[in-house]
Amino acid sequence: VKKMTITTTNPLTGVVTPTSLEPSTAAEVLHLTELAALALPKLAALGRSWRSDLLEKIADAIQGHSDQLVEAAASETGLSEVRLQGEVLRSSYQFRLFAEALREGSFLEAAIDFAGETPLGPQPDIRRILVPVGPVAVFGSSNFPFAFSVLGGDVASSLAAGSPTVVKAHPSHPLTSQVSAEVLTEALKVAAAPTGTFDIVYGQDAGIALVQSPAMSAIGFTGSLGAANVLQAATASRENPIPFYGELSSVNPFIVTEGAAATRPAEIANALFASFTLSGGQLCTKPGIAFVPNGPQGDYLVRKLTDITGESGAAVLLNSRIRDAYVAIEQRLVAAGAALLANGKQAHNMSISVPPTLLLTDAASVGAELAEECFGPLLVIARYDSITTVCRALVRVPKSLTLTVQADETEEGLVGELFEKLQPFAGRLVHNGYPTGVRVSWAQTHGGPWPATNTQFTSVGVSSIRRWLRPVSWQNVPQHVLPTELRDGPCDVPRREDGVLILPRLMG
Amino acid sequence: VKKMTITTTNPLTGVVTPTSLEPSTAAEVLHLTELAALALPKLAALGRSWRSDLLEKIADAIQGHSDQLVEAAASETGLSEVRLQGEVLRSSYQFRLFAEALREGSFLEAAIDFAGETPLGPQPDIRRILVPVGPVAVFGSSNFPFAFSVLGGDVASSLAAGSPTVVKAHPSHPLTSQVSAEVLTEALKVAAAPTGTFDIVYGQDAGIALVQSPAMSAIGFTGSLGAANVLQAATASRENPIPFYGELSSVNPFIVTEGAAATRPAEIANALFASFTLSGGQLCTKPGIAFVPNGPQGDYLVRKLTDITGESGAAVLLNSRIRDAYVAIEQRLVAAGAALLANGKQAHNMSISVPPTLLLTDAASVGAELAEECFGPLLVIARYDSITTVCRALVRVPKSLTLTVQADETEEGLVGELFEKLQPFAGRLVHNGYPTGVRVSWAQTHGGPWPATNTQFTSVGVSSIRRWLRPVSWQNVPQHVLPTELRDGPCDVPRREDGVLILPRLMG
Repeated sequence: VKKMTITTTNPLTGVVTPTSLEPSTAAEVLHLTELAALALPKLAALGRSWRSDLLEKIADAIQGHSDQLVEAAASETGLSEVRLQGEVLRSSYQFRLFAEALREGSFLEAAIDFAGETPLGPQPDIRRILVPVGPVAVFGSSNFPFAFSVLGGDVASSLAAGSPTVVKAHPSHPLTSQVSAEVLTEALKVAAAPTGTFDIVYGQDAGIALVQSPAMSAIGFTGSLGAANVLQAATASRENPIPFYGELSSVNPFIVTEGAAATRPAEIANALFASFTLSGGQLCTKPGIAFVPNGPQGDYLVRKLTDITGESGAAVLLNSRIRDAYVAIEQRLVAAGAALLANGKQAHNMSISVPPTLLLTDAASVGAELAEECFGPLLVIARYDSITTVCRALVRVPKSLTLTVQADETEEGLVGELFEKLQPFAGRLVHNGYPTGVRVSWAQTHGGPWPATNTQFTSVGVSSIRRWLRPVSWQNVPQHVLPTELRDGPCDVPRREDGVLILPRLMG
Repeated sequence: VKKMTITTTNPLTGVVTPTSLEPSTAAEVLHLTELAALALPKLAALGRSWRSDLLEKIADAIQGHSDQLVEAAASETGLSEVRLQGEVLRSSYQFRLFAEALREGSFLEAAIDFAGETPLGPQPDIRRILVPVGPVAVFGSSNFPFAFSVLGGDVASSLAAGSPTVVKAHPSHPLTSQVSAEVLTEALKVAAAPTGTFDIVYGQDAGIALVQSPAMSAIGFTGSLGAANVLQAATASRENPIPFYGELSSVNPFIVTEGAAATRPAEIANALFASFTLSGGQLCTKPGIAFVPNGPQGDYLVRKLTDITGESGAAVLLNSRIRDAYVAIEQRLVAAGAALLANGKQAHNMSISVPPTLLLTDAASVGAELAEECFGPLLVIARYDSITTVCRALVRVPKSLTLTVQADETEEGLVGELFEKLQPFAGRLVHNGYPTGVRVSWAQTHGGPWPATNTQFTSVGVSSIRRWLRPVSWQNVPQHVLPTELRDGPCDVPRREDGVLILPRLMG
C-alpha cells in the first residue's frame, strides 16, 4: 500500500503542491518514542554544560540557515519576510536564553537539608533537585512556524531540561518543519548528541500515536480547544496520565479608560488596529474585545478605528481552515447581537484571505457568546457607561493570556483598582501597551487561568522549562550517587542549604 | 427532613457512637466556597508578613490544644498516643516552617526584566511573581488525622500561599476534624482573618459539591485511586478544569543487595519489620515489596523476618473498610502466586485489626499483580538471582513515592548503577534507611511518577506550596500597581533582576 503524500499550500496563491513527505505510521512513532526514552539517561550523563553548548550550536545553526528557513515558511504561511526573519531571530535567541539559564542553574532548585537534630528529632540528609520528566511530545503551531514549532520555545525548553523531544509537525507548514528538523539535526550531529534526542513526525494519526506512546512523559500543545480535546481523549487510553500543557484560546480584553480616550484617541485607534491585525490577527495575544467608554471621546476613537479598518487591505491567513472558521465566527458574533462597524477590502486574487473586521456591541451585553475568540483580524468594540459594567462583563467572559488597560496618568486610583480586580482574569497584565508582542525573558508569563492554559506555568520565557522537570530527593546517599550540583563542597549553581539560599561564588 | 447524624467508630473497641455533626448540604458547600472566593483579595491585601504571623498563631493554637487533639484522635483512629503526640507536633512544626518560608520569600519567584534594548529590539518592563491560585479544596486523609488532615500540610501550604481553604473531613475521624477546625478557627479569630479564609465540610456528597463549585481553583486529595477517580469524574462537569493533586497509592520497593544481606541481615530484618508495620502499615511510604537475594544470607534474613512476623501481635487498623480491603488484597496476592511465610497473631477482642503478614514470591514473577499496594502490615518478599532481575521487575510494577536500597559499603559501583537506573521509578531515593518517616523540610520530595502523584510537585516540605500558586506578569505598570516585592528599590526577598538572582541585604 502506497502512503498518501503530504501536500503544502501557498496561502498567497492558493496553489497546492505535493511534497516528498509521507505521514509517519504508528509503528514509526512508537519506535521514535522508544529511542527518545533510551536517550534520556544518555543526555543526563552528558550534563548541564554539554546541553548548554548544544543549545548554542542549535542557535548558530538556525542563524546560519536563516534564509533557507524564511524561504520555506514564506512559501507556505503567507507571513511577510520581515515577520519571518524576526521569528527566526527570536527562535535562535530562545535557544541562547535557555543556554544561559542552564549555565546559571537556578532552574534546578537545588537544595540540601543536612542530617541533624530538628524540633521533630534527628533527621536524615535529604537533597533535592529537578530532573527531566522524560520524553516530551511537542505539537507545532500554525501561526508561529518557527517560534512555536520545530525550532520553538517548547523544544528549546524541553531540550534545555534534558528531556528528549519528539515534534509533531503542523500540517500548515510541512516544508518549513522539514527544513527546521534538518537544521536542528545538523546541530545535534555536530554536538554528537545521543540518538533519540530529537525527532519529528508528520500527520494527524502520528499525533495520536505520539500522545498514546507509553514512552512519553509530557505533552506541549499549541492549537484549538477542539484539537486539544481530541488529543486529551486519546491520552485516556494511557496506563499513566501525563501532564498536558495546552495553549488553546484567548480573547485578551483591552480596556480604554475615559482618560485615555480623552487624551490619546487617535494614537490608540492606530496602535490598536495594528495590534489586532498584526500577522493577520493570528496571534494568541491578539486583543479580541476592546472596551471603549460612551461619549464623544470614545465616539471619536471608534470612528477613527472604523475608518482605518474600512480602508485596510485584505489579510492573508495561514490556511483555509482558519479562513472558514473566521467567516463562521464573524457570523456567530453578528447573530449574537454585534453590529458591523467596518470591513476592510476583499482580495481580488486566489489568496486565502479575509478583510479585517470591526464589530460593535455594548459592554452590558457582553458574555461568552460575544467574547468568542476569532483567530484573524477581527475586533469587537464594547461600549460602556461605567468601569463597573466592564468589570462585570469580564466575569462573564472566558479568562485570558493577557489583559490590557489604556489609561491616563491622572487616573492613578482607577488604575490601581482595575489592576487589582483584573488580576484573577489573566496571566499578563499590560498597562499603556498592546498585548501582541511577547517579550522572551526571565520574568515573562504566557499562560493564565483556563482556557488560557498552563495555569501553573508559562510557555514563553525561561521559567517555561519548569513544565518538563520533576523533583527528586535523595536520602542519605553516598556522594558519588548525587548529581554534581548536590555534592558537598563548592557548587556552581544557586543552592539552598538548611533553608538558606546560597549563590555560587563569583569568579574573580 | 431531619439530616443523618455522622457517627464515629473506635477501632480499638469497635464501638460506634453518634456525634452532633451532620453532613454539609450542597447549598452549604457552595456558600462556603463563595465566601472563600471573597476572602482571596482580602487575604492578598493583608500581605505576606501577616500570613506568616497567622501561621505562627495556628502553630501555637495546635500546641496549646495538643491534649484535646490527641484525645479525640485516640478515640477514633486506633493510633497510639505517642504516634498522635508526634503527629500533632509535626503539624504545628509544618505551620512554623511555612511561616519561615513566607518570611524568606523565595517561593514568590520574584523577577524583573527592566525595559531596554535586547537582541530582539526594545522591550517593555516585565515583572513576575507567583500569586495564590484561588480557593483550594483539601481532602483529609484517614491515616494522618493531623499531618494530612484539617491541620495538615496541604492546609498549611495553601494558607501560606494565600489561598482560602475548604477542607473535606475524612469520615474516619469526624471528631478529630471538628476539634481541629475549632483550634484553627480560634487562631484565625485571634488574627482577625477575613471570613472565608478557612472552613470545613462533612460527608461524601459535600466532597463532590466541593470539587464542582465554580469558586474552587485547585484540589488536594489524599486517598485511594478509586475515590480519586470518583472525584475526578465529578470535576468533569466543571466549566473550567482545575489542578487535582492526588496522593493515591505507592508500593515503595525495597532492595536488599547481596552485601547488605551478608553483613546486616538481622538489623535489616528487625528494622524492615518495624517499617512495614509502623502505624499498622497504614503509611503511603510503607515498603510493600522487598527484594532479597537468593542464597544462605538472604535465607537467614527472610527466616528472621518470618520469625518476627509470626510472633507479632495484631495491628489495629483505622477502619473496617481498610481491614476488609486488607483481607481481600492478601487473598488476591496469594491467588497471584505469593506464598504465605508468616501471619502474626489475631486479636481476641472486638478491635478492627489484622495480623501482620509476610508473603513470598520470586522476583522474576513480580508484575503489577504481585505489587498491588496493600494498606496495612503486609510485605511481599521477592527473592532474586541477580540485580538485573530486580531492575526488570521494577519496570513491570507501578512507580512509587519512594525506592530504597540497602547495600554494603564495598558495593560502591553497584550502588551508583542502581540509583542511576532507579531514578525514573520514584520521587525519593533512600540509601541504607527506611522509607517510612518523611522529613518535613526544604529539600523533601513526597510525590513521583504516576500513580505516585504530584509528578511535578511534592505534597510534603516547603516546595509543596508551589501547587497553590500561579505566575502573573505585569507589563509596564506604575509602581503602586505592583506587589511590594516587585517595586523598584530594596527588596526583602530573593529577586531576579535582568536574569541575575539577588539576595536581600542581610540585616546588620
